[in-house]
Amino acid sequence: MLKLYSAPGTCSLAANIALHEAGADHELVTLDFANHQQRSPEYLAINPKGRVPTLVTEHGVLSETVALLLYVAQRFPAAKLAPLDDPFALARMQEVNSYLASTVHVAHAHKRRGARWADEASSIADMQRKVPQTMTEAFNVIENHYLQGPWVLGASYSVADGYLFTIASWLKTDDVDIALFPKVAEHTARMLERPAVQRALA
Amino acid sequence: MLKLYSAPGTCSLAANIALHEAGADHELVTLDFANHQQRSPEYLAINPKGRVPTLVTEHGVLSETVALLLYVAQRFPAAKLAPLDDPFALARMQEVNSYLASTVHVAHAHKRRGARWADEASSIADMQRKVPQTMTEAFNVIENHYLQGPWVLGASYSVADGYLFTIASWLKTDDVDIALFPKVAEHTARMLERPAVQRALA
Repeated sequence: MLKLYSAPGTCSLAANIALHEAGADHELVTLDFANHQQRSPEYLAINPKGRVPTLVTEHGVLSETVALLLYVAQRFPAAKLAPLDDPFALARMQEVNSYLASTVHVAHAHKRRGARWADEASSIADMQRKVPQTMTEAFNVIENHYLQGPWVLGASYSVADGYLFTIASWLKTDDVDIALFPKVAEHTARMLERPAVQRALA
Repeated sequence: MLKLYSAPGTCSLAANIALHEAGADHELVTLDFANHQQRSPEYLAINPKGRVPTLVTEHGVLSETVALLLYVAQRFPAAKLAPLDDPFALARMQEVNSYLASTVHVAHAHKRRGARWADEASSIADMQRKVPQTMTEAFNVIENHYLQGPWVLGASYSVADGYLFTIASWLKTDDVDIALFPKVAEHTARMLERPAVQRALA
């Protein structure tokens, strides 16, 4: 059985949604970040990066949301969670997911994880002040360029939808009003109606 | 014909290497970053993010290295640039590529692009000082965890090799000695022997 290591409020929600959408039998293990469980020797033996999500499969361990989402979509093709038969459409899905991972998630991370990239308290406060601007810029790209509607890739739902939903849920704590992005706000509302999303959030 | 927008010293080299490995007939367009050509109205009409690489195909425009590399591998399957028939192995390749994009490239970007995430000169200088540390940590993960040898995924060359080679080429300007990572250093030397890499660098 697949085992997903996750933590509340993190991007691991995206993989959890994908597993529920796929109807995959899986065990969810929730790490306690407040007690630094992700840095425990036991967890570092599974994922030496000390991050979530991590997916344990019978073939080995996978990490990085972009990879987990593709894996779930390919492993459960009947769930139609990615355009697996269309190389251009699949690359477009990976483009959106990679933008979410390497630009949007990174922008958000400067609010609470600034110590990854600088040491002085003044630098970290400076980074925190800029997060509303960088998140707004990123969501303008999503609103105007990436979210075709009703789903990210247009008519067909994909794993990119769960990922966008996850990261859009961070806007509030980043002091950005989701109402600035009407298509994103509608997308979030649409996602909340899906039973798989409700199960993942439960 | 495929058209790749690139700039010297950027991650667009990875996609260019992949196209040469695939034997793909393609046009290379080099943008002049010193003159901010990537922010010109003409280029922003193609890629509103104002970044490279961008790949123009007959089906539409793609960006994000992680997506371009998968697309090239899928479009030219005879070149065997990815384990397309093995979902776990393909996800592992995407895991490495996503780590390079969202952690390693991001660590490097804090050297010259710190203004993306902070405003004060003192913060940007602080970020620059930390780059050797973050790049060393990231390459320790690659050396000890991701680079199976002789290629990233083991016996078979893949598009992940061109991407690792590209990012490893930044270590010198990031004041990190590649000799700290013997497997990475050997990988770079092995890559330089490949005709496709030599053509991409020419």
